[in-house]
Amino acid sequence: MSRSTRTNGAARAVISDKREAILNAAVKVFAQKGFFNSKVADVAGEAGIADGTVYLYFKSKDEILHSIFDRAMEEFISEGKREISEIKEAAERLQRIAELHLEKLGADRNLAIVFQVELRGSTKFMEEFSAAGFAEYLEIIHQTIEEGQQTGIFRKDLNATVCSKILFGALDEMVTNWILSKKPYPLAPIADEVLKIFFGGVLSK
Amino acid sequence: MSRSTRTNGAARAVISDKREAILNAAVKVFAQKGFFNSKVADVAGEAGIADGTVYLYFKSKDEILHSIFDRAMEEFISEGKREISEIKEAAERLQRIAELHLEKLGADRNLAIVFQVELRGSTKFMEEFSAAGFAEYLEIIHQTIEEGQQTGIFRKDLNATVCSKILFGALDEMVTNWILSKKPYPLAPIADEVLKIFFGGVLSK
Repeated sequence: MSRSTRTNGAARAVISDKREAILNAAVKVFAQKGFFNSKVADVAGEAGIADGTVYLYFKSKDEILHSIFDRAMEEFISEGKREISEIKEAAERLQRIAELHLEKLGADRNLAIVFQVELRGSTKFMEEFSAAGFAEYLEIIHQTIEEGQQTGIFRKDLNATVCSKILFGALDEMVTNWILSKKPYPLAPIADEVLKIFFGGVLSK
Repeated sequence: MSRSTRTNGAARAVISDKREAILNAAVKVFAQKGFFNSKVADVAGEAGIADGTVYLYFKSKDEILHSIFDRAMEEFISEGKREISEIKEAAERLQRIAELHLEKLGADRNLAIVFQVELRGSTKFMEEFSAAGFAEYLEIIHQTIEEGQQTGIFRKDLNATVCSKILFGALDEMVTNWILSKKPYPLAPIADEVLKIFFGGVLSK
């Protein structure tokens, strides 16, 4: 490895650390103050850096919100793909996807607030998100359902697209209820209750 | 009827007309520009009245958004209650509720955008909404499921609260997909597809 490669590697690590620090600070600030009420200066303050430094990494507050979404979806999808690649049976794979969905958001309340509330407040954002990582996630659920239909474990008379949206919608509602609830409770175990009903509807008898 | 009563009645009708006109204008403006980007002046302009007149009816832009939600929920709940009071069987009643949900929002794209996007963008709003008319709506679904469990048509081993949230979450996701879709399609018929799967999960075998 040449000296310049090593130097570049170290520089990239610093850039990535600072970028991460800004994104982590932004999740906290957006969750607590709301995206529209937050200023880039609030994010900089939370990250302990100068306002101008944020603009070395992100063009705008909008781009920070996009990057929070992209980063979380990338992590979630790559972990999900790795985990389900080891599971052969479609229903078990779907079970693991649902559990991961609630485990991930249930483990980070601020991220859950950004996902369930701050990202939903504008059609512009929503349209962009549905075209990006979110579509990939829905496609994984959709494919798993289609595979289960091919192997005969899931009913073949159901529309796989509708099935995948129902499962996503049900999980999504559980997360929203969880962040709005005044009483705290663990989110992840609810995956079992959702799946008991969903599988009742989609499993072949 | 005394003259003053008649005058008051007429005055009330004018107040109610103008209030309605402001709310209708606001639905259009909020759906098209987004709630945060809209100004009270935009709503006044769309309604064809002076800015100051809006403040005779509403304290703030927030109060207009609240009133849009309250008015729509009141109409929806009173129509829903009237319709389902004539249906004896719990599964049929649930079917009618799901149909009404998609019919109402499917008939008014701007209202659907305000419900699915503009009302979701702040935890403050979300918390207030879940405490208000929305809770009443979920309670109607919940009660219907419990009644179906008592008469034995629905599985008794399921948690009725989770069931009602799954049904709501699934319908809600269908509405969001519908407003974000670039290709137009009728929303109401999707109720049947959602219920085919939901009933598969909750009906006693």
